[in-house]
Amino acid sequence: MAAALALAERGRGRTFPNPNVGCVIVKAGRVIGRGWTQAGGRPHAEAMALDAAGASAAGADLYATLEPCAHESPRGPACADLIVAARPARVIVAYPDPDPRTDGRGIACLRAAGIEVIEGVARAEAARSMAGFLTRRRLGRPHVTLKLALSLDGAAALGDGRSQWITGPEARAHTHLERSRHEAILVGRGTLEADAPRLDVRLPGLEDRSPTRVLLSATPQAGWLTIASPEAIASLPCDHLFVEGGARTAAAFLAADLVDRLLLYRAPILVGGGRTLPDFGIADLTQAHGRWRLEDARALGSDRLEVYARS
Amino acid sequence: MAAALALAERGRGRTFPNPNVGCVIVKAGRVIGRGWTQAGGRPHAEAMALDAAGASAAGADLYATLEPCAHESPRGPACADLIVAARPARVIVAYPDPDPRTDGRGIACLRAAGIEVIEGVARAEAARSMAGFLTRRRLGRPHVTLKLALSLDGAAALGDGRSQWITGPEARAHTHLERSRHEAILVGRGTLEADAPRLDVRLPGLEDRSPTRVLLSATPQAGWLTIASPEAIASLPCDHLFVEGGARTAAAFLAADLVDRLLLYRAPILVGGGRTLPDFGIADLTQAHGRWRLEDARALGSDRLEVYARS
Repeated sequence: MAAALALAERGRGRTFPNPNVGCVIVKAGRVIGRGWTQAGGRPHAEAMALDAAGASAAGADLYATLEPCAHESPRGPACADLIVAARPARVIVAYPDPDPRTDGRGIACLRAAGIEVIEGVARAEAARSMAGFLTRRRLGRPHVTLKLALSLDGAAALGDGRSQWITGPEARAHTHLERSRHEAILVGRGTLEADAPRLDVRLPGLEDRSPTRVLLSATPQAGWLTIASPEAIASLPCDHLFVEGGARTAAAFLAADLVDRLLLYRAPILVGGGRTLPDFGIADLTQAHGRWRLEDARALGSDRLEVYARS
Repeated sequence: MAAALALAERGRGRTFPNPNVGCVIVKAGRVIGRGWTQAGGRPHAEAMALDAAGASAAGADLYATLEPCAHESPRGPACADLIVAARPARVIVAYPDPDPRTDGRGIACLRAAGIEVIEGVARAEAARSMAGFLTRRRLGRPHVTLKLALSLDGAAALGDGRSQWITGPEARAHTHLERSRHEAILVGRGTLEADAPRLDVRLPGLEDRSPTRVLLSATPQAGWLTIASPEAIASLPCDHLFVEGGARTAAAFLAADLVDRLLLYRAPILVGGGRTLPDFGIADLTQAHGRWRLEDARALGSDRLEVYARS
């Protein structure tokens, strides 16, 4: 299942409105098929893996990070039907499909055909892997990652707004990798006017994965999707939104309680008198505590990346 | 030598104007004497360890974190003379004594008496261990540690000044431990008036190790040593100064380039609109880089302590 989850990551940010699923087929200890939901949502991971395995899928174990779909669509057959036809001995599923057209019917269909099904393996990891799809299903909006690149004393820029550079090249390259995992990226008008950011992915081999650019602004802007308030993210054609700047935009999303994941890049510098996060409604320090849970941390050159999730 | 360095830590912040030295005497694989400079500077570490070892010191190995003193004083005999009398086979020394009254004469005296001397073992660690004494010798002022307790976005307090609490009980207990390792602790008038801090050591067994309280202020204050500018720390009767608050005082020490070590306690919270470090003269981000080297980091409850040293 770990291998299937790793494959699922390849689709993150590219499969909207479909979930990014991974699938691995194993027989006699050998991987005979691998698949992941392709850009735009088709083919599905299971269809790709079954295609690779061919007739050998009979009697094999099939690992899928999401319950196989049970609904036919003009875009292709239901995965559950494909699996029944391929006759694996067992299907191992991480997470049930919340889509009302499937919602348990995929697993029921496999069992009715005499295939053993094991559910809930690495369920929490699969939920993290499909956070975009599941947030859209549950809350009707994309999953939001807020990026902050700060000095030790919380400065996102000098007092006059200059921000090149707080962090080093390794941290900035990591930001480009994160961009490639989101369908859309948002900045505020202040950042647009100060930095005229390209917001593209400048990493070899990932140039075609630059996300849609979204502007938080009361007035529209040519070449940008524009929304007037954080709450309007529900209307954006994406399941993964990357909020990249600046400090006022970050505060607007925090004030609206619309940040699910915090990417904090920290440089080992003190700036003094810099641009820091403005007030977003914390009236008492007890209110500030318990909101963020450290999920990952790593060194990036001389900087440190910390990833926090909403508690 | 690691054991001698650990013993030396017991004296840190208590031996002014003497260095905090550690000493271990080993014979046939057994420790037969241990010593560290006592409060106020006497007895010296070597005298204490030799006293414990007694006649068994003959033929043993003696480890000292600093070159034994060669100058007699009204307060006691020179350690080099005591060692010659005890006749160890070897003396292992981490750091040469920069005191002009010794400055190599301790080691010369041992060698003249036919004792083998090995120099420079764990020299860098010994320099860190005696940072206070060595900073006073080199720069004529105490070694300065700046403590900052900050949120992820750099807030030392809410916008209105309330700072109880950014960090949790484990981090606050660690601050009390750090206080016990400094002879003096300094705050600014803003902190004095806002918090009326006790600045004592509230840890079981260390209550008697509360440092002298120093105030940075243009006007004197009863019960406090008062200095009018950071540069005046040279006159303080201490080798280790702990600068504890608030943000304006921190900026004054940074502006004067008088911070040797940074203790950063970071809470996993975002505050927004908080009190952050004011301008201390960084005009360009390139100027901010390369000044601080991460020396240690650890979790303290849900907070994180990072220790930086001047690069």
